[in-house]
Amino acid sequence: MGKQNKSALSEQDGVSQNEMTSSSSIESIKQKRKTQPSAEDLIAAILKGDITALSRAITLIESKSAAHLEKANTIIKGCLPHANKSIRIGITGVPGVGKSTFIETFGMHLTRLGKKVAVLAVDPSSSITKGSILGDKTRMEDLVKNEHAYIRPSASGDSLGGVARKTRETIILCEAAGFDTIIIETVGVGQSETAVHSMVDFFLLLKLAGAGDELQGIKRGIMEMADAIVINKADGDNVKKAKLAKVEFNRALHLYPEKATGWQPKVSLCSALHNEGITEIWELIEKYENLTKSNHYFVHKRNEQNKFWLMQTIEDRLKSNFFTNKKIKEALQQQLQLIEAHQTTPFAAAEYLLSL
Amino acid sequence: MGKQNKSALSEQDGVSQNEMTSSSSIESIKQKRKTQPSAEDLIAAILKGDITALSRAITLIESKSAAHLEKANTIIKGCLPHANKSIRIGITGVPGVGKSTFIETFGMHLTRLGKKVAVLAVDPSSSITKGSILGDKTRMEDLVKNEHAYIRPSASGDSLGGVARKTRETIILCEAAGFDTIIIETVGVGQSETAVHSMVDFFLLLKLAGAGDELQGIKRGIMEMADAIVINKADGDNVKKAKLAKVEFNRALHLYPEKATGWQPKVSLCSALHNEGITEIWELIEKYENLTKSNHYFVHKRNEQNKFWLMQTIEDRLKSNFFTNKKIKEALQQQLQLIEAHQTTPFAAAEYLLSL
Repeated sequence: MGKQNKSALSEQDGVSQNEMTSSSSIESIKQKRKTQPSAEDLIAAILKGDITALSRAITLIESKSAAHLEKANTIIKGCLPHANKSIRIGITGVPGVGKSTFIETFGMHLTRLGKKVAVLAVDPSSSITKGSILGDKTRMEDLVKNEHAYIRPSASGDSLGGVARKTRETIILCEAAGFDTIIIETVGVGQSETAVHSMVDFFLLLKLAGAGDELQGIKRGIMEMADAIVINKADGDNVKKAKLAKVEFNRALHLYPEKATGWQPKVSLCSALHNEGITEIWELIEKYENLTKSNHYFVHKRNEQNKFWLMQTIEDRLKSNFFTNKKIKEALQQQLQLIEAHQTTPFAAAEYLLSL
Repeated sequence: MGKQNKSALSEQDGVSQNEMTSSSSIESIKQKRKTQPSAEDLIAAILKGDITALSRAITLIESKSAAHLEKANTIIKGCLPHANKSIRIGITGVPGVGKSTFIETFGMHLTRLGKKVAVLAVDPSSSITKGSILGDKTRMEDLVKNEHAYIRPSASGDSLGGVARKTRETIILCEAAGFDTIIIETVGVGQSETAVHSMVDFFLLLKLAGAGDELQGIKRGIMEMADAIVINKADGDNVKKAKLAKVEFNRALHLYPEKATGWQPKVSLCSALHNEGITEIWELIEKYENLTKSNHYFVHKRNEQNKFWLMQTIEDRLKSNFFTNKKIKEALQQQLQLIEAHQTTPFAAAEYLLSL
């Protein structure tokens, strides 16, 4: 068993290439590698800001082995009292909007302000494509090399719920390791934006001017979630179009009732490529943080998010426990046939299945 | 027990005022009232088209007494093989759009074509206001008196799920009683439109020209569900505005991918008050019926709806069984406090609660 654990860890260590190599506690972990660092060792190292330990612990969270998950839970529990001291920022936008360039420029700006930045991703499609949106780190050349930044690709998984859970737990570890700014990237795949929205303090929607997808944003409910809309690539010939788009988005945002935060969502222009408008975006987020911390909405929202994930996890588990039961599976097929033959109703069939 | 049943039935009979008084089997039911008509008696009478029996059976469906519900289930089962031969039409629209007038004019048109029309409603708010959208029958004067029409106000209930279930079962009884056109009205209260959409073959959205709520329709996902948008009150000075609105709605409808039905949603103008455009709307629904019956989508959609209600009922019951458990209720409060104090995560709390 010990051997199996070790090989699984070694194999997955290959994935985490963003490890700092200057920490003193790494050596002690390397020494222990043959004997497996204990959960306590990893907690202690994470709290010292050790990136290798952080990566190893995240790998445990992402593992499918029950022993790994038990260890991961111990580590999470140990890190929890030291977590929660960060601002969590969600970033979404369609492919081509320049998310990677934006995160690179934005992240570099934050590190220059003395922030420690962790960049995570929620990409449920990564289990299919075997690559994630952050997989291609060459698109964030400077940030990858920056010792105050930590980039971790999306966990893979069969379900959005699974991926989201792993990311939520990863946030805790990153915060315990001293990262005070957590950026969570997602693309608009299914419900991934809703999942990210429900794990961040601030939700930023990246847009292009004149892309004509304003109504899509309304339709899919994304605009409603946005605390800020940032129109990227507002440079050169694009500036005029971007300014017009700003007016339009501002109008669209007024469709929505005032948010419980007391915050009126803002529209901002930037050119991530030319490092323009980035300062303003961070100032905007700071304003949001100040407002919601002074009116206590910041903590309230995190509590509501925790409640949401608790309920969601219970519901998912209740359903999967029920529907993966072999007896139910068979009876369900029979009941569906009876319904199709007009011999029973969906409600009577449900009662019957629940009585098994 | 017999006496209790009787008084409950008598009391609720007062609610169903839309009973025909010319059927021969009524007398036999009246005779039996003191001894309670059996489920078999009611089934036989419903299949003969007896409206009093239909109303009494629906009252059983809406009852909270377990004995009544058992009897209702027997009646539904007996009616099921004779149901399903109808077109089910959902109608929604904001207050003021003229739903009652539309249903009155549309329903009268259908009865002149030889149809038998049942009008039901899904209005989860009726439990609060103690009245339903169809409660004020004076707004449908002619239809109420029409012997080929049956109007039943919304069931009341604590939850949309409960109201929707009762309406779904009422549809079965109405169909078994020979009603070939079922109209289900709803107002945009919470998720009631989604509930109605998932129990009808054709979903009709009533609109006014120039109301400026086009984006609301997109935002709330109602436009996506519509098989037809009918712009009402297209008369007098309104005609020009209505024609412009038709162009706009047509454009908005093209935002959505082609429907699995193969049907491209249509926009139509009418004036329910002046009985204009009503023929065209029915022709449109007939076209839809012909198309979806020839490409087999009609039956496919009903099967999918049944599957949806089966799954939905199971999920609702799994959740309510879990969360109404006293032990869980108490432990849940404790876990929420632990989460708030950063002593556990939502996921660990969920595991713990599920293990109880």
